[in-house]
Amino acid sequence: MVRGLNDTHDPQRKSWVSSANSASSDFPLQNIPHGVFSAPGRPRRGGVAIGDMVLDLRAAIDSDLISGSVREVAEAAAAPSLNALLAMGNDAASALHRCLFDMLADDGATRHRLESLSNELLVPLNEATLYKPAAIGAFTDFMTSTYHASAARRARPARELSENFLHLPLGYNSRASSISVDGVPFARPFGQHRAASGEIVFAPTAQLDFEVEFGALVGQGNQLGSRVSLDDAEKHIFGYVLVNDWSARDIQLWEMRVGPFLGKSFCTSISPWIVTAEAMAPFRRAPYPRSANQPQPMPHLDSSTHRLNGALDVKLNAFISTSRMRAAGQTSTQIVQTNLLHTSWTLAQMLTHHTTNGCNLQPGDLLGSGTVSGPTEDSAACLLEITAGTLPIKLPNGEYRTWLEDGDELIIKGRAEREGFAAIGFGSCGARVLPPI
Amino acid sequence: MVRGLNDTHDPQRKSWVSSANSASSDFPLQNIPHGVFSAPGRPRRGGVAIGDMVLDLRAAIDSDLISGSVREVAEAAAAPSLNALLAMGNDAASALHRCLFDMLADDGATRHRLESLSNELLVPLNEATLYKPAAIGAFTDFMTSTYHASAARRARPARELSENFLHLPLGYNSRASSISVDGVPFARPFGQHRAASGEIVFAPTAQLDFEVEFGALVGQGNQLGSRVSLDDAEKHIFGYVLVNDWSARDIQLWEMRVGPFLGKSFCTSISPWIVTAEAMAPFRRAPYPRSANQPQPMPHLDSSTHRLNGALDVKLNAFISTSRMRAAGQTSTQIVQTNLLHTSWTLAQMLTHHTTNGCNLQPGDLLGSGTVSGPTEDSAACLLEITAGTLPIKLPNGEYRTWLEDGDELIIKGRAEREGFAAIGFGSCGARVLPPI
Repeated sequence: MVRGLNDTHDPQRKSWVSSANSASSDFPLQNIPHGVFSAPGRPRRGGVAIGDMVLDLRAAIDSDLISGSVREVAEAAAAPSLNALLAMGNDAASALHRCLFDMLADDGATRHRLESLSNELLVPLNEATLYKPAAIGAFTDFMTSTYHASAARRARPARELSENFLHLPLGYNSRASSISVDGVPFARPFGQHRAASGEIVFAPTAQLDFEVEFGALVGQGNQLGSRVSLDDAEKHIFGYVLVNDWSARDIQLWEMRVGPFLGKSFCTSISPWIVTAEAMAPFRRAPYPRSANQPQPMPHLDSSTHRLNGALDVKLNAFISTSRMRAAGQTSTQIVQTNLLHTSWTLAQMLTHHTTNGCNLQPGDLLGSGTVSGPTEDSAACLLEITAGTLPIKLPNGEYRTWLEDGDELIIKGRAEREGFAAIGFGSCGARVLPPI
Repeated sequence: MVRGLNDTHDPQRKSWVSSANSASSDFPLQNIPHGVFSAPGRPRRGGVAIGDMVLDLRAAIDSDLISGSVREVAEAAAAPSLNALLAMGNDAASALHRCLFDMLADDGATRHRLESLSNELLVPLNEATLYKPAAIGAFTDFMTSTYHASAARRARPARELSENFLHLPLGYNSRASSISVDGVPFARPFGQHRAASGEIVFAPTAQLDFEVEFGALVGQGNQLGSRVSLDDAEKHIFGYVLVNDWSARDIQLWEMRVGPFLGKSFCTSISPWIVTAEAMAPFRRAPYPRSANQPQPMPHLDSSTHRLNGALDVKLNAFISTSRMRAAGQTSTQIVQTNLLHTSWTLAQMLTHHTTNGCNLQPGDLLGSGTVSGPTEDSAACLLEITAGTLPIKLPNGEYRTWLEDGDELIIKGRAEREGFAAIGFGSCGARVLPPI
C-alpha cells in the first residue's frame, strides 16, 4: 500500500510534449516540478519542467488556460520567487498539479489548442536561465547517516557514533544567504586554518570538499511556540531539491567548536526544480531499520504510518569533471552512488524534531539530510570519507584527487525509481570551483 | 582622540522634549535611536526615541518637516520595518540623524512650529507598542568572552580555552526566525534531554538560562564572494541592540555535537531601539588587551585604528523579577553587571571574520557578541556560570534560583557612559517565562 497515490501517478499516462515520454527524462508527466526561469522576452517568472521544456505559467495564465479557484495558485507559481506558492501549502499545490497534469496529458480536452499555442507556452530548457526557486530564509542541516558519522573507510579510523545519534536527528543552523542554484560557480574560499606545516595561516582552503545531500523545502510554516506532530510533518514539506553542502575541511576543523561556520558558509548549491511531495508518493519506503538493541525513536518521532513508509527511495549520484577532462572533450565521471534510504532519520522526523521546542519554520526554509553516505566504498558521499585526505582517487584520465582543485566541477543528480511507476528525476545540482580571489 | 565625533555628540545640547534632558534618560538628544511602533490611530510605523517619547516619523514627513534629499531616508525610517533604512547605509543614516537632531534640539529654527505640532509628532513611550525593528534574516552568534569560555566560578571547574580562541572569533549560525522583541514572553520549551535520573526524556527543560549579549545589526551588506576589510567593517554596522540568547542547558548539552540548535532556537530577545553606530562614537575604546605571550590578531583582523578604539564601552546589567516578587510589589533585582569590553573580539572583527570566506551579509543580519561575562563573580552573565547548576543564588525575598522558573522575568539593560559626554542607553530587553504548553 502506498499513501497518497492518485491517477497523476499512473505510469501509462503520457504527455503531448513528446520529450517527457522518454524513459530517461527527469521530468515526465508524473513529475511536473516547480522552478523559476527567464528566457529572451520572458523576464524572470515561475514555470514547471516537462520533458526538455519549461511550461511558462505566466503565458499559460495570460492565454486563459487556467481558470477557477486554481488560478490564484497558478499566479503564485508564476511569480519570480515561489515563496507565496509554498506558503499556500500542499492542498493548493495539489490542485494546481491536477490542473497542469490535465493540460499536459496527451488525452486532455484542450490538447489541440495547447499545441497551437506551444510557441507561447513552452521554452526549451536549454534556452532558459534557471534561478533559485524561492528565497530561502533559513537553512538547517542535519547529520543523519550512521555511515558518514562513523564509517571506517580507507585511511579513516572508525569513530564511535555519538551517544545521541539514534535518539534524535542531529541538526545545526547553517547559512542561508550563500545558497546558490545549479551552475553558479564560486571562488575557492580563504580562511584561517592550520597549514600542512602546522602553522596557522590565512589562505585559500587546501581541503575543498563536497557533500551529497537531499533537501526538503518547507511549505506552510508553523507559529512560534507551536509544535508540528510527525503525522502532520509532511503537510509542511512542499517538495524536495538536491543539495551540495560544499565544505572547506581545514577551515572547518580549525574553527569548529560551536558548530560548522565559515567552513561551509561560502556556498551551498541546490537544484533548481522543486519536486513536489505529491510526485514523490510512489517512492515512499520504510525508514532505516534499527536493530533491537539500538535506541528506537521516541513516541513523538514515531508512528505506525511513518514506520510503514516515512522514508523516500532516491538514488543520488555525483559526477566530477576537471578542466583537463573538459579540455580533452571527456565527459564527467561518477564518483558517488548512494541512496537517501541510508539516512537514519527521515525529513519528516527532522521537521518534527525541529519544532519540538516551538521553533517556527517558515515557507522556503530548507532542511538538509546531511551527507547521504551508505555502507559501501562507492556510496561514501564526500571526499573526507572517500580519500580521508590521504589516499587520492584516480580519475579515468589519470588525474588524482584528494580534495577538489580549481576548475573542478561536481554535479549531483537524483532519481526516484520503482517498478510499476514512471521514474522521476531532480535535474542537476552542480557548480564549478574558481580560483581564489 | 575619538573617531567620528561631531556636534551631535556635544553634551551641552538639549532638546525641547524636556524628558530627554534628564541625566537618567536612555534617550537624550545625543542618542535618537530608530525603532518601529504603533499607537492608537497610528498603525505600525517607524519612529525615533527621544526622552520618554517616540517621534512619529510618518507624522513628521506628513507635516512637511523633512524635505530635500533626506526625505527619502526618512521614508525608509518611517516604514513598518527598517530593512530599507539599514540597506541605505550609514552615510544616509547620518544625514537623517543630523536632520532629526536639528528638529529636536531646543535651539532649532523650527522649535515653535514643532512644539505646536507636538500632539501629532510625539507619542508617549508608555502608550506605544514596540516591534522588532527589522526583519532579521540571519542571526550569527559568537563566543568571545574568555571568562565565559574558561572561568572557574563557584562549583564550575576551570576549562582550558580552546586553542583557536584568541586566533579567531568563534562563531556559529543561530536561528533568526524565533527572535522576539522586548516584552514578548515565551513558553518553557520542551526537548529531548537527559533527566536528573539519567533517563533520556522528552519533557520541558529543567535548566532554563539566559545569556547577556550585545548585538550589531548589519546595514549595507556585501556581495557573495566578497570580503569586508576591518577598516570597512564599521560601514556595514548600522547600529546596536541588546540581546538575550535564552538557553535550555539540558537540551543543549544532550543535542550539541554540531553546534547549538534546539537548546537556543525557541526564543532570542532583542531590545526594540537600534542605537546608531554614530551615536556610539564617544564610547569607543581600545579592545581587550592581549598579553605578549597570547596570540595576536592576524593582519586581516588587526589595524592601528582598530587597536586604538575598535571596541565599545557598554555597561550591561541584568535584573530578575519572579512571580512572588511581583505579587508582593517588589521591584526586580540586579543579578549581573558586566561590560562589553570583557569580550576578546570586537563586533567589527566579528563582521570582518564572517566575510573572510566570501559569505554575504545582508541588511538586518544580527551578529551577537556571545555571553559578555567578565572576570568577577558579579559579571558572570548567565546562570550556567553563576550557579553552575548546583549552587543556587538567593534573591532578596528569600527565594533561590539555580535555573529560571516559570513566571520569572529577566531584563537586560545597557548604558554607555563617558566623562564629558551625555550618557546614552539602550532601553530594555526583557521577557517572561511562561509555563510549558
